[in-house]
Amino acid sequence: MSKHKIIYDTDPGIDDAIAFVFQARHPDIELVGITSVFGNSDIGTTTTNALYLASRFAPHVPVVRGAAAPLRRPAPAPIAHIHGNDALGDIERIGRVERHVDGRDAHRFIIDTVRAHPGEITLLAVGPMTNLALALKDDPHIAGLVREVVVMGGAFGFNGALGNVTPAAEANMHADPDAADIVFGAPWKVSIVGLDVTHETVMTTAFLASLRDRAGDAGRFVWDVSRFYERFHADDGMSRGIYAHDYSAAAFVVARAFYTTRSGPVRVLTEGIAAGLTIQKPSSMLASAPDWDTRPSCDVCIGVDVRAVLDLFAETLIGP
Amino acid sequence: MSKHKIIYDTDPGIDDAIAFVFQARHPDIELVGITSVFGNSDIGTTTTNALYLASRFAPHVPVVRGAAAPLRRPAPAPIAHIHGNDALGDIERIGRVERHVDGRDAHRFIIDTVRAHPGEITLLAVGPMTNLALALKDDPHIAGLVREVVVMGGAFGFNGALGNVTPAAEANMHADPDAADIVFGAPWKVSIVGLDVTHETVMTTAFLASLRDRAGDAGRFVWDVSRFYERFHADDGMSRGIYAHDYSAAAFVVARAFYTTRSGPVRVLTEGIAAGLTIQKPSSMLASAPDWDTRPSCDVCIGVDVRAVLDLFAETLIGP
Repeated sequence: MSKHKIIYDTDPGIDDAIAFVFQARHPDIELVGITSVFGNSDIGTTTTNALYLASRFAPHVPVVRGAAAPLRRPAPAPIAHIHGNDALGDIERIGRVERHVDGRDAHRFIIDTVRAHPGEITLLAVGPMTNLALALKDDPHIAGLVREVVVMGGAFGFNGALGNVTPAAEANMHADPDAADIVFGAPWKVSIVGLDVTHETVMTTAFLASLRDRAGDAGRFVWDVSRFYERFHADDGMSRGIYAHDYSAAAFVVARAFYTTRSGPVRVLTEGIAAGLTIQKPSSMLASAPDWDTRPSCDVCIGVDVRAVLDLFAETLIGP
Repeated sequence: MSKHKIIYDTDPGIDDAIAFVFQARHPDIELVGITSVFGNSDIGTTTTNALYLASRFAPHVPVVRGAAAPLRRPAPAPIAHIHGNDALGDIERIGRVERHVDGRDAHRFIIDTVRAHPGEITLLAVGPMTNLALALKDDPHIAGLVREVVVMGGAFGFNGALGNVTPAAEANMHADPDAADIVFGAPWKVSIVGLDVTHETVMTTAFLASLRDRAGDAGRFVWDVSRFYERFHADDGMSRGIYAHDYSAAAFVVARAFYTTRSGPVRVLTEGIAAGLTIQKPSSMLASAPDWDTRPSCDVCIGVDVRAVLDLFAETLIGP
């Protein structure tokens, strides 16, 4: 099997960093670029963090600065109580960052790379979908040239929640609902890994400590970076551990069989008290629904083999 | 224990009729009134059906005609493919209807009855919530005088669906979302029995046949009236049986312990492609959400002991 050529569109972010380490270590993944986006912090901070992550774990992968704000809204305030002031858990950073960003805009980099590798690129998007929407706007034909789009975002109620930042919206969807609705409506293959499965996929303190002790530099980094994030989760009522939001989407790329999916078109509400809410029309629903029926089907994750997904992470970091 | 004094606000409707027979037969329920509302058919048809049901199964209970249309929209078209041309499955009707409607409007009847029995009345609403919203508008103080409001409607995703008439909306919520949002926002005790549990609660053909053979006139009626409804369910991909939507709300009144509930304020979207969508902020969610936080908590059913709920129905109709 050829490797999965991934452009990692990301707003690091602690769980983004954890997902990044996995990608950098997985033998079937070839990271071809990292595109930053606002989200967990401002674009300057997330880009700085992307450069740091690339320097430490994937030194030859280009880093490209992306959108600073949503398509039709002002940039949101950083959420320092979740990810820390530096959005990477305020850890001491090991090593020097001698990397610089690629001069292009992220959406232009996406277009160029997809066109250079037709049918081969997986867009793994774990922040607001702004860069992907801008790429589609500048060059709609890329939709037919991408291998797959895998998104961390949204929630469909299976695990009792429709959102986390509001009762109706998951953070990435809420940050740029217009972009998400564009991405889910484009004629490319989209898979959505949302709270329905990521809220099931908990890395416990014991699991993280085991990685710290057994997975070398990568394991120590995952431990260090997750300390702040774990404190936030504890304050939010969760006992000892963290949600593996963004890692779940990375795991889906290489281990789709660990997930149960439901097919059908997905809309994202862009206005009102539920802006950012994701709504799928399941393919089993026979009634007509014009606001969905003209759009392509997406695969939405509704179940997960948690043990297998966590084992995959540990095995990838610890190695053979 | 004193009986549950119920005003049954209904748009019969086949499953409304099944729920009615249960109430008429249950020893702990005292039906104090039946208020009709548009919904499964036009108000003339649902009122005629309410008079028929009362004549046959609860001859001394007043029937009151209610709203012909939603608060802010035109009346919808009847949905004859689900409930039949007469909205009661087009069965041959046994017996004469010599009843007439009470001269009041339904919302006025609700106000008068609640004020006559402060703290005692349960409003069991299984159609569009228009009559209840109109009653609140005319006399907001009734909210403090009602024992409880139990609603069949909405969907919160637990069973994989946010709606049935659209991907986002259950039929009663979709029919008058403004009314539902008013009812869920009023300071009274509201419990919501939605698709999350009613889609679990299936009366199979065998179950219905057993009632036909063992539960006398009531059992034969339930069998007869459900034939049309079962054909609709089969066309919709369901194997042999019917959803006990409205009965589930009636069962909740007398057997709350059969249900698992989640507390938290509920909003109903009133505009856009997801109009009629119900969204709860679970009480466990710590983030502030101004569009929910000022509103009272509702109990939403998220789990059900199906066997117990079906046994209750059979035992009630068959008798000791």
